[in-house]
Amino acid sequence: MSLNGDVSNLSSQRPTSKDAIVNLDRGDPTMYEAFWKSAGADADTFIPGWTSMSYFSDATKLCFYLNAQLTHQIRRLHNLVGNAIAGDDRFIIVGTGSSQLFQASLYALSPPDAAEPMSVVSLAPYYSTYAPMTDLLQSRLHKWAGDASKFAGDRYIEIVCTPNNPDGSIREAVLCSGDGKTIHDLAYYWPQYTPITHAADHDIMLFTLSKITGHAGSRIGWAVVKDREVAKRMMYYITLNSIGVAKEAQLRAEKILQVVSDGYENTPNPDVEMKLFHFGREKLAVRWRKLVEAVKASGIFTVPSFEPAFCNFIGEVTENLPAFAWIKCEKNEVEDLERYLKEKGVIARGGIQFGMEARYARISMLDRDPTFDLFLERLSAMS
Amino acid sequence: MSLNGDVSNLSSQRPTSKDAIVNLDRGDPTMYEAFWKSAGADADTFIPGWTSMSYFSDATKLCFYLNAQLTHQIRRLHNLVGNAIAGDDRFIIVGTGSSQLFQASLYALSPPDAAEPMSVVSLAPYYSTYAPMTDLLQSRLHKWAGDASKFAGDRYIEIVCTPNNPDGSIREAVLCSGDGKTIHDLAYYWPQYTPITHAADHDIMLFTLSKITGHAGSRIGWAVVKDREVAKRMMYYITLNSIGVAKEAQLRAEKILQVVSDGYENTPNPDVEMKLFHFGREKLAVRWRKLVEAVKASGIFTVPSFEPAFCNFIGEVTENLPAFAWIKCEKNEVEDLERYLKEKGVIARGGIQFGMEARYARISMLDRDPTFDLFLERLSAMS
Repeated sequence: MSLNGDVSNLSSQRPTSKDAIVNLDRGDPTMYEAFWKSAGADADTFIPGWTSMSYFSDATKLCFYLNAQLTHQIRRLHNLVGNAIAGDDRFIIVGTGSSQLFQASLYALSPPDAAEPMSVVSLAPYYSTYAPMTDLLQSRLHKWAGDASKFAGDRYIEIVCTPNNPDGSIREAVLCSGDGKTIHDLAYYWPQYTPITHAADHDIMLFTLSKITGHAGSRIGWAVVKDREVAKRMMYYITLNSIGVAKEAQLRAEKILQVVSDGYENTPNPDVEMKLFHFGREKLAVRWRKLVEAVKASGIFTVPSFEPAFCNFIGEVTENLPAFAWIKCEKNEVEDLERYLKEKGVIARGGIQFGMEARYARISMLDRDPTFDLFLERLSAMS
Repeated sequence: MSLNGDVSNLSSQRPTSKDAIVNLDRGDPTMYEAFWKSAGADADTFIPGWTSMSYFSDATKLCFYLNAQLTHQIRRLHNLVGNAIAGDDRFIIVGTGSSQLFQASLYALSPPDAAEPMSVVSLAPYYSTYAPMTDLLQSRLHKWAGDASKFAGDRYIEIVCTPNNPDGSIREAVLCSGDGKTIHDLAYYWPQYTPITHAADHDIMLFTLSKITGHAGSRIGWAVVKDREVAKRMMYYITLNSIGVAKEAQLRAEKILQVVSDGYENTPNPDVEMKLFHFGREKLAVRWRKLVEAVKASGIFTVPSFEPAFCNFIGEVTENLPAFAWIKCEKNEVEDLERYLKEKGVIARGGIQFGMEARYARISMLDRDPTFDLFLERLSAMS
């Protein structure tokens, strides 16, 4: 999102004309609508008026608002994909998007009575929203301290986003100290974006429905947490911040995740292929091929390239196909790529927000076809 | 909620036996389930799998995630009931419960660069969660400063909750200074709880679906805001805190509010009475009558009493029927009413959390019939 609080110029509408502004600032995952249109009634959610009215789903559970069926579908999906250890000995905490869980994690990992706020760091380029989320309330508990590679100290929370937003790189923590903590943001560690090389097993791992299935509007994320005390502190934050998470969004997430797993494990109709991760890979492979061609033809842009690796889930060597393209402009006179693109009718997010130079910019690869095609057309005309 | 972060002992289950613990700590509004069961299919929500996937509803609007139909139903209901001025010249901002909107309001009203945090106050007894919400992150922007009647100073945010949680009193701001700000928490300013004597018209007014229709699990609240800059700052908070509000919960809230207004304006079947506020009043009138009888019979408890007033909406003089009973124990040897009730198997919230003595406690009047009846039975046995 825009960091000045003015979000009125964001748009995910289909372009209405060839001159329309193409807004790829936010990673609005509307690319997935096409998949869900073909899913039909299996993916529909129906909620009778008198159900799910209480704050509680199971008051005996730590995460008191969490529907048992959603927990089941979350564990089932991780087990199917093999991207994270999320069995019964891990706490599942659902949040209003992974944004809320990020903030709950910071709260949980910051001692309440320390003399100095905890330093929150991440290797640049880092997701542009970590900094303003950390410093939103000018907390005495934690403060944004920037690029992890430039941090000196023992007490910190390092955010490890892998594959990384914005540049798609595969990462591990760069700091290591006995007093350091980590939060692993694994929003993009799914087979459409990257080879699944191992089952991740970290203290706090964050996921979001938005980037798995495209249901960004549901604001459903979850954390897989090892330690009970950390989970309890996260729950305290969420309980005060919003007294839980919308039941309706949970019911839909449960349905949607069930369709995803059923598509691989339990296809009701073998003639209909409902393989979400394959759909995503195919879409992104085509888009990335076209983008790389356009970038090469331009002669002024570059994008990162990645080594393929064996994906345990797909069962073959697959490419990294990030959800964002991290574009660098090599033309000397273009010092501010965001501004340059804006003049050409493309809204991107500039490098400065990610802790890098302004000659970088991030664009979403997950928008609808007509928007992406119009973007490519514009990009191809630049040189 | 419990303030020590341990919420696992909360329960809104129906009592399974005569010895069951009766938990009336939280205002879980399950009393309304019976109404919605009789509403039938009109109140059901159906969401196709491929719809409402984007972050956005209307990217040209300040509240970019807010569905236009929900805005319409919110304005329509305020217009019908006459409890608040909420026309087109007011901003409607929807939040994940009114909790999130409370925090967004504090953020919006606290200058970012002040030397001292803004003092946040409310007249005691005040809603127990204002304090921990305000101080959750130990913000440099604002800090809880307790009872408004004991506050001396010019810079403050006064929370005015009317009818008041926990004691049902009708309130106005007690402080008045040129630099002071107010947030009006009008969660209970609806005809089932209190006479609607005028259309409220304050700078920031907070409402929540939970206490109007009973859909607490949806986490849908809204703010009616006069000033554009305040609304923009609230939106900045919500955008960073959760990137909006679940679309599914919005779709359901829209449907539920439509049924409420249709019940008065546009009854499709005149043989079926679907008047929510009348349902609520009748339920609460019976419960309050029984409670007052039990309290009198006990000889050791008192509850507040109120003057009736003319309700513009109902069209006659009506009583105050608060959503909580604020019980005082007059028995000298009972200094801690919460503990005393707990020994008798009733979970209430003690007076200390509301800025008062421990001989007070709050109990919810909105639970299901069997729970409320069991509570009355227990209360009647105390003396």
